[in-house]
Amino acid sequence: MDRLEQQIRFIVEIDRLKAICRRTMLIDRSRDENSAEHSWHIALMAPLLAEYADAKVDLLKVMKMLLVHDVVEIDAGDTYCYDASAHADKAQREQAGAKRIFGLLPSDQATEFRALWEEFEAAKTPEAKFANAMDRLQPLINNFHGEGASWKGNGITVQQVEKRMEPVGAAARSLGEYVRQVLEISLERGYLEPGK
Amino acid sequence: MDRLEQQIRFIVEIDRLKAICRRTMLIDRSRDENSAEHSWHIALMAPLLAEYADAKVDLLKVMKMLLVHDVVEIDAGDTYCYDASAHADKAQREQAGAKRIFGLLPSDQATEFRALWEEFEAAKTPEAKFANAMDRLQPLINNFHGEGASWKGNGITVQQVEKRMEPVGAAARSLGEYVRQVLEISLERGYLEPGK
Repeated sequence: MDRLEQQIRFIVEIDRLKAICRRTMLIDRSRDENSAEHSWHIALMAPLLAEYADAKVDLLKVMKMLLVHDVVEIDAGDTYCYDASAHADKAQREQAGAKRIFGLLPSDQATEFRALWEEFEAAKTPEAKFANAMDRLQPLINNFHGEGASWKGNGITVQQVEKRMEPVGAAARSLGEYVRQVLEISLERGYLEPGK
Repeated sequence: MDRLEQQIRFIVEIDRLKAICRRTMLIDRSRDENSAEHSWHIALMAPLLAEYADAKVDLLKVMKMLLVHDVVEIDAGDTYCYDASAHADKAQREQAGAKRIFGLLPSDQATEFRALWEEFEAAKTPEAKFANAMDRLQPLINNFHGEGASWKGNGITVQQVEKRMEPVGAAARSLGEYVRQVLEISLERGYLEPGK
């Protein structure tokens, strides 16, 4: 039962992702979402939106990637995407987290899941590009349908979000077009600040 | 953009699953978990534990099923598994929820995802059996590693959990053996009441 014990240890450890808060609110604006429920949301978006990916993707790989892409935050915390200073040591904190957390698994699964996380972070393969598009698109949807709650609270500009959303259009042109429309309306409605 | 609009409407709607509370606590016992983060947890358990499935399973199908299996609760609410009276109209409430919520999607995806949910509920195919095993196993793990918090608070007996866990051993003998061991220790430690 040694192998199963290692797997259970990992399953127990990742429960803590449910306590890692993000800077995106639920659409009903009752609270910030956590990284576990965010991961659920984007993993379910993937099969719904895969038809828009410009390159053919292995959906099983994309979904595993999305389910696991944030677990390093258990050690490293969620780094707010519009906070440049916190990004300075993000990579180092996350690498240490990956080593410890994936290291709980039997070595073959540790290797597989760490590789999936590295692939997501590198964002070079069709699967990683599409997974990154899902990861960027969901907070846009939540912010837009939540009347810009998390953007307005942080004085975010349309250019900042435009830059942040580049991976969406890079992986799926038609989703990039959708983003463009959402940003236009968000600016009109005052959810986002005009640029400097 | 009509098709994409339908898909986005579904993606917006399911955000509400993050507000559906379950009767299982996080392992740190800080709060009850919600159905979205529960779905994330079991969808990630599936690729880790698929090797124990007694019948060969299509993992992509299992993971889609697990990600979507609780969305009907947005309308029907979470029904506590040890509350017999609440189960009386559960099926009816959930069917109505399925009709409305999957009906937001374009018809091909509505059909696919509703069929996945029906298949999960029927628990007859290898994929549905294994998915049900994951859905049962995770609250056992959370309860056991959280010192029986949700069991003790509700006076649950070892027989009740044994019965509830039957799908685990039915889909994966070795995971059934793990459950047996956990129940034995839980009884010794007083996390569960002895039977009547």
